[in-house]
Amino acid sequence: MKLATLRDGTRDGRLIVVSRDGERHLPAEGIARTMQAALDDWDEAAPKLSALAERLEGGEGDSLDPTELDAPLPRAYEWVDGSAYINHIVLVRKARGAEPPETLETDPLVYQGGSGVLLGPTDDIELPNPEWGLDFEAEICVVLGDTPRGTTKDDAEKYVRLVMLCNDVTLRNLIPAELKKSFGFFNSKPASAFSPFAVTPDELGDAWKEGRLHRQLATRLNGELAGDPHAGPAMHFSFYDLIQHIAKTRAFTAGTIVGSGTVSNEDEARGVSCLAERRMREKIATGEFVTPFLKEGDHVQIEMLDDDGKSIFGRIDQKVVRA
Amino acid sequence: MKLATLRDGTRDGRLIVVSRDGERHLPAEGIARTMQAALDDWDEAAPKLSALAERLEGGEGDSLDPTELDAPLPRAYEWVDGSAYINHIVLVRKARGAEPPETLETDPLVYQGGSGVLLGPTDDIELPNPEWGLDFEAEICVVLGDTPRGTTKDDAEKYVRLVMLCNDVTLRNLIPAELKKSFGFFNSKPASAFSPFAVTPDELGDAWKEGRLHRQLATRLNGELAGDPHAGPAMHFSFYDLIQHIAKTRAFTAGTIVGSGTVSNEDEARGVSCLAERRMREKIATGEFVTPFLKEGDHVQIEMLDDDGKSIFGRIDQKVVRA
Repeated sequence: MKLATLRDGTRDGRLIVVSRDGERHLPAEGIARTMQAALDDWDEAAPKLSALAERLEGGEGDSLDPTELDAPLPRAYEWVDGSAYINHIVLVRKARGAEPPETLETDPLVYQGGSGVLLGPTDDIELPNPEWGLDFEAEICVVLGDTPRGTTKDDAEKYVRLVMLCNDVTLRNLIPAELKKSFGFFNSKPASAFSPFAVTPDELGDAWKEGRLHRQLATRLNGELAGDPHAGPAMHFSFYDLIQHIAKTRAFTAGTIVGSGTVSNEDEARGVSCLAERRMREKIATGEFVTPFLKEGDHVQIEMLDDDGKSIFGRIDQKVVRA
Repeated sequence: MKLATLRDGTRDGRLIVVSRDGERHLPAEGIARTMQAALDDWDEAAPKLSALAERLEGGEGDSLDPTELDAPLPRAYEWVDGSAYINHIVLVRKARGAEPPETLETDPLVYQGGSGVLLGPTDDIELPNPEWGLDFEAEICVVLGDTPRGTTKDDAEKYVRLVMLCNDVTLRNLIPAELKKSFGFFNSKPASAFSPFAVTPDELGDAWKEGRLHRQLATRLNGELAGDPHAGPAMHFSFYDLIQHIAKTRAFTAGTIVGSGTVSNEDEARGVSCLAERRMREKIATGEFVTPFLKEGDHVQIEMLDDDGKSIFGRIDQKVVRA
């Protein structure tokens, strides 16, 4: 099933179930008021939400306006972002003249992101200072149920409740000084945006396999395709590997979001899911960075299509505005 | 006023108001079910909670059992921990053979911590592996209301809703490998524990001044005083400085917790608020680390007293158990 959050003036919005084609919805009223409430009580709520999903496929429901949607979780208890596509790590570190870590292929990179204010799929990206080097990062992420400390990759599947897309907004020019302090990203990672729909793994069919999503993730900048890399095989650490890694020393509460990191393929024909990679490829090819970072008025769209060309998660569709 | 969260079998517990002496309480029922709900609607809730606090000072209320308390926020939307006591940074970096950052005195160090699972004041600290080097870190922290992006230190005061204490549990031996990857702490920071009471700044009187808490913070290990450093003057960056720093590129939702970092004084007579500092001082004095990290059965207590010797925030009182 597909779930979403309708803005209603409250902090957490209102949970709805969405038809497979993304065009109609039914309110989850009486089951769970919010997405977090459904995740808090998943075993109870999921079958009832699923029954609503069936009614939607039977033709019921009101038409859905995607601009009325907030992030599936407008505020979340944790946002843990990985960097599981090794090609991305190698390229962006080259771009800032840094070496990839020695443990690149054996020890997953993750950082703890801010999760108290998350952006809806059509929210503007505010840019207070163009010198900060605004970039998008197209990612896949999963939403966990209560996940105990010590969960292993073999056990991780059962804690994955939902899958969605993310634009992990990044301020590239703030990164070097921040990483030099060795406490990780902070100012360089403003609020991230999420796809309209969060879907259960069964909705993905065979494309969801061993903790990886085997489809192409398309990112458009100002209407032109920036990239459509395959998200499956290039994901060096699967979501199950990431869950095992993060659960080594602590437990996670229902509603924790775990990100894949920027989807990236070695094959240059597949383009990029962030401008930093394109810039690095330009530098390698020509000695110069050519593409500028995002500026006021730029338009970023992120989407994943199924075999019939239908949007699985709806479209992240954001404009950059000067703030 | 003093607020706390009583365990009631739900994820967020139940908000109570506590008498100044910490011995009695009244339920906040009908005002706000949980601490988060009160923070979400603070302008409405605070005067009503304050009226309950007055009734408590008039002698009303039921007796309070501190072991029934959870963390004031059992799950929070963000936990942002600073490192504002420069003496701590210098000592722990020496301990791991690392240099302090060049911008030590001009650019605050903060990291984003996990906030989905927080420990109550008397919860056990689980130690799955003694080799991980378990340590306590006694800190002060504040809970924010909705804080806009771009908040400056001059404006920060009005967003500080509550003050509390924290034991920022740390796995020292996991830090070097983690920081080498430059994405910040993750596995090395398991769940932190918080004091029984979260108090409004006015409850602190003159001791709360310009974003610093001017009192001594006492930590006991197995009944012996480990340290009682002054938390005020040695805090190089005030909470207002920290808020300005973190709000540079994004906004924070009500209920965000901001920590001071380990309270630390240069004066060795004031002892330590974490074992890493004591170990480093031993190394400097004798060439050897003498004090071991925490082991099963160890007992950590953190508390701050007022002029009359009464506990302001109640006592963090935790045992280390093998998990």
